[in-house]
Amino acid sequence: MAQDRSATRERILDTTAELFRRYGYTGTGLKQIVANANAPFGSVYHHFPGGKVQLGEEVIRRSGQMYLEIVLAVLDAAPDLLTGIADAFMGAAEVLRATDYIDACPVATVALEVASSNDTLRQATADVFDTWIDAVTARLSAAGIASDDARRLAMVLIELIEGGFLLCRAARTTQALEAAGSAAVAVVRAALESSID
Amino acid sequence: MAQDRSATRERILDTTAELFRRYGYTGTGLKQIVANANAPFGSVYHHFPGGKVQLGEEVIRRSGQMYLEIVLAVLDAAPDLLTGIADAFMGAAEVLRATDYIDACPVATVALEVASSNDTLRQATADVFDTWIDAVTARLSAAGIASDDARRLAMVLIELIEGGFLLCRAARTTQALEAAGSAAVAVVRAALESSID
Repeated sequence: MAQDRSATRERILDTTAELFRRYGYTGTGLKQIVANANAPFGSVYHHFPGGKVQLGEEVIRRSGQMYLEIVLAVLDAAPDLLTGIADAFMGAAEVLRATDYIDACPVATVALEVASSNDTLRQATADVFDTWIDAVTARLSAAGIASDDARRLAMVLIELIEGGFLLCRAARTTQALEAAGSAAVAVVRAALESSID
Repeated sequence: MAQDRSATRERILDTTAELFRRYGYTGTGLKQIVANANAPFGSVYHHFPGGKVQLGEEVIRRSGQMYLEIVLAVLDAAPDLLTGIADAFMGAAEVLRATDYIDACPVATVALEVASSNDTLRQATADVFDTWIDAVTARLSAAGIASDDARRLAMVLIELIEGGFLLCRAARTTQALEAAGSAAVAVVRAALESSID
C-alpha cells in the first residue's frame, strides 16, 4: 500500500512535469493532472497537502535536478569540454525536433510565469538555476578557467541554451540552438585560451 | 466618439501588455484587463471580436515592435556598435532593477506558454523574433560582418538577452545580464575582427 501510494506520488510528479512543459504552470489544472496521472482526485492533496503550489515547487526542483543530471552525463561522455558543450546543444536540438518542439527546458516557462506572481515558486526556480550555474562553473574551473570567469561563463552558457530554446520553440526550427551551440563553444574556447596565457 | 473608442482600444492593449509581463498569457483574464483598463466589459469584444486570442496576438505584435524600437534607439544613440550593444544590455538590467524585475522582454513569457498550445499566438511570437533577428542582422551587416554570420550572431545576441532576463528575474539580481552583455560584446568584437582579416 505504501508502495502504491509512492508510485501514485511519482506518477503525479511526472505527469505534472509533462503538463508544465506543454501548458505552463498557470495553464495546468489539478483535474488535468489527476486525469492524466490516472489517479484519484484526492490523491493530489493527500501527497501534496499544500496543493498546486507545493506540487509545483516539487516539480520545479525535481525537473531541474533531472535535467542537470542529463546535461552533466552528456558533458561527461565527451572526450573534452568543448566537444561536450557542442554535444549538449546538439542533443538539445535533437530532442526538441523529436518531441515536436515541446521538450525543452523544464523550468523556464514556469520561471517566467511565476517570477513576479509567486515568490515560493520563483525561489524554487532561482535555486534550480543556481545549482546549474554551480555545476557548470565547477566543470569550467576544472578545465582551467579562473573561478570568477567560470561563473560568468556558466551563466552565459545557460543563457544561450535558454534563449535558444525560446527562439526554436517559437520558430519550430533548430537554427537558433545551432547558433547558440557554436557561440557557446567559441566563448569557452576563448576562455580556455586566455587561461593558458 | 470614434476617438473615445480608439483611446479605449489603446488602453486595453497597454493594460494587457502590462498584465502579460506580470502574469503571462494564461494568468491574465479578460475581467482583470477591463478592470485595470477602466473599460466596460463589452469593450474587449467590441474592439477584439476574436476575444482573448485576437487581443493576445495584437499585444504580442505591438509589444514586440515597441521593444524593438527601444533597442534600436539605444543602438543608434551609441557612438559605435560595441558600445551600443553594451548599452542595450546595461539599460535592460537597469530597467529590470527599477521595475522590481517585472519589465523584461514583453514577449518571452507568452512565447513559452503558447509554443505548444496555441499556434496562432506561437506564430505571432515567431514573427516578432524574426523581425528582431532581421533588424539586428542588418545592424551587424552594416558594421561589416558577413550576412550569414550576422544572422547567426543576431540570434546569439537575442538569446543572451532573453536568457539573461530569465536568470535575472528568477534570481532578482542583474549579474546574469551583466555576464550576458560582456559575452555579447565579446562575440561581436570577435566577428568584427575576423571580418577585417
